[in-house]
Amino acid sequence: MRTAIYPGSFDPLTNGHLDIIQRAAKLFDRVIVAVAKNEGKGPLFSLKERLALVKQSLRDLPNVQADSFDTLLVAYAEQQKAQAIIRGLRAVSDFEFEFQMALMNRKLDSKVETIFMMPRETYTFLSSRIVKEIARLGGDVDSFVPQHVRLAMARKFRLPTAKR
Amino acid sequence: MRTAIYPGSFDPLTNGHLDIIQRAAKLFDRVIVAVAKNEGKGPLFSLKERLALVKQSLRDLPNVQADSFDTLLVAYAEQQKAQAIIRGLRAVSDFEFEFQMALMNRKLDSKVETIFMMPRETYTFLSSRIVKEIARLGGDVDSFVPQHVRLAMARKFRLPTAKR
Amino acid sequence: MRTAIYPGSFDPLTNGHLDIIQRAAKLFDRVIVAVAKNEGKGPLFSLKERLALVKQSLRDLPNVQADSFDTLLVAYAEQQKAQAIIRGLRAVSDFEFEFQMALMNRKLDSKVETIFMMPRETYTFLSSRIVKEIARLGGDVDSFVPQHVRLAMARKFRLPTAKR
Amino acid sequence: MRTAIYPGSFDPLTNGHLDIIQRAAKLFDRVIVAVAKNEGKGPLFSLKERLALVKQSLRDLPNVQADSFDTLLVAYAEQQKAQAIIRGLRAVSDFEFEFQMALMNRKLDSKVETIFMMPRETYTFLSSRIVKEIARLGGDVDSFVPQHVRLAMARKFRLPTAKR
Amino acid sequence: MRTAIYPGSFDPLTNGHLDIIQRAAKLFDRVIVAVAKNEGKGPLFSLKERLALVKQSLRDLPNVQADSFDTLLVAYAEQQKAQAIIRGLRAVSDFEFEFQMALMNRKLDSKVETIFMMPRETYTFLSSRIVKEIARLGGDVDSFVPQHVRLAMARKFRLPTAKR
Amino acid sequence: MRTAIYPGSFDPLTNGHLDIIQRAAKLFDRVIVAVAKNEGKGPLFSLKERLALVKQSLRDLPNVQADSFDTLLVAYAEQQKAQAIIRGLRAVSDFEFEFQMALMNRKLDSKVETIFMMPRETYTFLSSRIVKEIARLGGDVDSFVPQHVRLAMARKFRLPTAKR
Repeated sequence: MRTAIYPGSFDPLTNGHLDIIQRAAKLFDRVIVAVAKNEGKGPLFSLKERLALVKQSLRDLPNVQADSFDTLLVAYAEQQKAQAIIRGLRAVSDFEFEFQMALMNRKLDSKVETIFMMPRETYTFLSSRIVKEIARLGGDVDSFVPQHVRLAMARKFRLPTAKR
Repeated sequence: MRTAIYPGSFDPLTNGHLDIIQRAAKLFDRVIVAVAKNEGKGPLFSLKERLALVKQSLRDLPNVQADSFDTLLVAYAEQQKAQAIIRGLRAVSDFEFEFQMALMNRKLDSKVETIFMMPRETYTFLSSRIVKEIARLGGDVDSFVPQHVRLAMARKFRLPTAKR
Repeated sequence: MRTAIYPGSFDPLTNGHLDIIQRAAKLFDRVIVAVAKNEGKGPLFSLKERLALVKQSLRDLPNVQADSFDTLLVAYAEQQKAQAIIRGLRAVSDFEFEFQMALMNRKLDSKVETIFMMPRETYTFLSSRIVKEIARLGGDVDSFVPQHVRLAMARKFRLPTAKR
Repeated sequence: MRTAIYPGSFDPLTNGHLDIIQRAAKLFDRVIVAVAKNEGKGPLFSLKERLALVKQSLRDLPNVQADSFDTLLVAYAEQQKAQAIIRGLRAVSDFEFEFQMALMNRKLDSKVETIFMMPRETYTFLSSRIVKEIARLGGDVDSFVPQHVRLAMARKFRLPTAKR
Repeated sequence: MRTAIYPGSFDPLTNGHLDIIQRAAKLFDRVIVAVAKNEGKGPLFSLKERLALVKQSLRDLPNVQADSFDTLLVAYAEQQKAQAIIRGLRAVSDFEFEFQMALMNRKLDSKVETIFMMPRETYTFLSSRIVKEIARLGGDVDSFVPQHVRLAMARKFRLPTAKR
Repeated sequence: MRTAIYPGSFDPLTNGHLDIIQRAAKLFDRVIVAVAKNEGKGPLFSLKERLALVKQSLRDLPNVQADSFDTLLVAYAEQQKAQAIIRGLRAVSDFEFEFQMALMNRKLDSKVETIFMMPRETYTFLSSRIVKEIARLGGDVDSFVPQHVRLAMARKFRLPTAKR
């Protein structure tokens, strides 16, 4: 059985993340969406909230599960007996940072392999940061995140939760 | 009549910004330099101060006006009946971020078009951030910003305002 | 009246080119699609063929016309009394080459301004080169080029011209 | 059973290619190294020679096989019932071209997924093109290609085949 | 006598920095490793601590010395009668930022030249930021920093200082 | 005595090349401008012509000399007892290719160090290829190459040699 880990802050999960998860689920027997604690970044949603939003998005994907971690990623991967770490690539700036992290992770543990996947091209502009900014200013994020994430952001920003 | 919006933080306006504005003024009937509130970034100058510094720089450009906004850029563009959003491109890193924003804005409102322009090559290294850093350390920013911006920075950093 | 030139090899014109042309047509009074002779590149279609394929694509765009040129681009722009040169940007590698050309053109003639526009994100992967390669191998290029361009490539590659 | 295809010109296969193949062999049940005909590029080695050099390199990898193809890559992948196409990424310039190809391939056939892997960092500078150039000038390519590839290049360039 | 300055935050010095220093020491008569005060960045180590860690690393390099500065880099270079500023380049993102800084420094003082050097390829993924993150999570940084830097980080993060 | 080699095709030498040479001449005791034979590229000027054009440009630089080579660059550097190879960097695309070459050269000979320098920002758009294209189309290259190079190109392209 081959296991892959898809790590991230997921603050919050977007349709771009979900697209990568669905693609990975076809290539591996088990995929773990691993929410990093990352308190340093001052996330909008708590770890518990982010994990709950991820879990709610995975209901139709039987071989995908959600978890959280607060250790080195390679230590977590080893503990989960994962063969691969999955990262989505959208742009050149992603690419360089991801490469540095992947090389470092390989140095720390040569048994787990990082592989890169591409989201749908209509999601190349999507990031949790931009989605939060648009939601904060009252913009329509309906096509960027699942409905339950949209509602959760509306509550955070005290916006009317009815579909605009 | 065709209207273009040139949005930014302008904290503060540099000669690079001014160069783009002058080029845009030749291509459009009306150009609005739109100062974004952006309180989150912890600007050096208040919104009011930034807007005043921009206004003072536009005196010789009859078809350019200054304004501020605190909504989604596309909502502001629609309100101003603008056909285009103008962004300056200096480097690859600019390019990617600007592309993401432009695609997102197009998604949010397909009627307004983002176009990219190039400043003079002697301004490719210029950014508000670098100019502030140099001014803070007492360096000579005379060829990077208009004179009234230089004086405003000197006052902020409590430097002697006489030309060094 | 403001005129913009959209230069290129157009060997052949793709839906990505057409997308840029349609966007430009909204921002300028007159747009000239200018086919460069570029014999050096060993084009698949002759200059005459490329120009004909472009012309056929512009029928519904009243303020857009097609032309060819074999001089310096800035000399052609001046002759046409154009204020702007339009270039599509898809990727970082485009960006750098286009920047070099735009700076050089500005050096050669400071009166004409190069502006960059973005095609629909679903066209970011499109290039004449890739489309020709797919057509040559018998792949379906129906969503990448106008129908008359598809037929012209099929004739060049001696493929069945019926829609596959 | 999950099958991945690793396509390329392999003119000739380098240690960087071999490194990617070994990593892929751990993640998939079957890996097919697929040599593209690519006559247009004017290869140093014929398709038959390139395929033979690849085959000789795969002897210790029981779940990896070599093949050649001269159709659209996605058509070949479908024929092989492959779930994934594997591409090595070394640099930003790779990244953009590979992204365009992967998006195009996804457009042509949405069932096969392109995934990207990283070679060892000591191979980031390796390319078939550079290796050929060094061998042509009589440089030592011993640490860049398998021994039988080194000998084949020496024969092509009429160099002494003894280890320098 | 030719003097080069190698400026940075060195929070803390890594083996990648040390690699650049050793290469520079062969090309210049005197190399000054110049620790920037940079309080704004909220460094892990104080200026005094960073300078001490650098000094301890330079013991075997007779023509290299350590210093700190809190002025414009070009002013410091002029004061030290340096002909060159040395910067390490690892990646494209480095490249652009470094280029902007180098062009700005040239504008501020045309007499000092910035030159770029490449660390060993095994250090391309190394950065002070990543090293601190790994140390904080208890990962093994033994091959990334000198031993005395490893111990200093362990003390900061209250980790056991014995080699894991 | 420290020697640096500045290798290239110089087909032909531009003001951008000359700018790098002048900067390097201040940092090293001896600089050798080394013209690569590179017949494969189909140069406009023969090796002999290129070397002559370079030599004529170096008259006022006493510690700079011109030479040609047709071996591996590192073999040539060793023969000249050079400590450094100098390369100009203008753009991200330069950067990646140059990095690959520099790493490969370091692998082939660890004793010679590649260092990168930046031309004046007004030359960032300059390349021999673009200059030849402009000259071929009759454009004014007066500010891009030395006068004797301008005349040599005019003769090649059978243009009137009088200053336009």
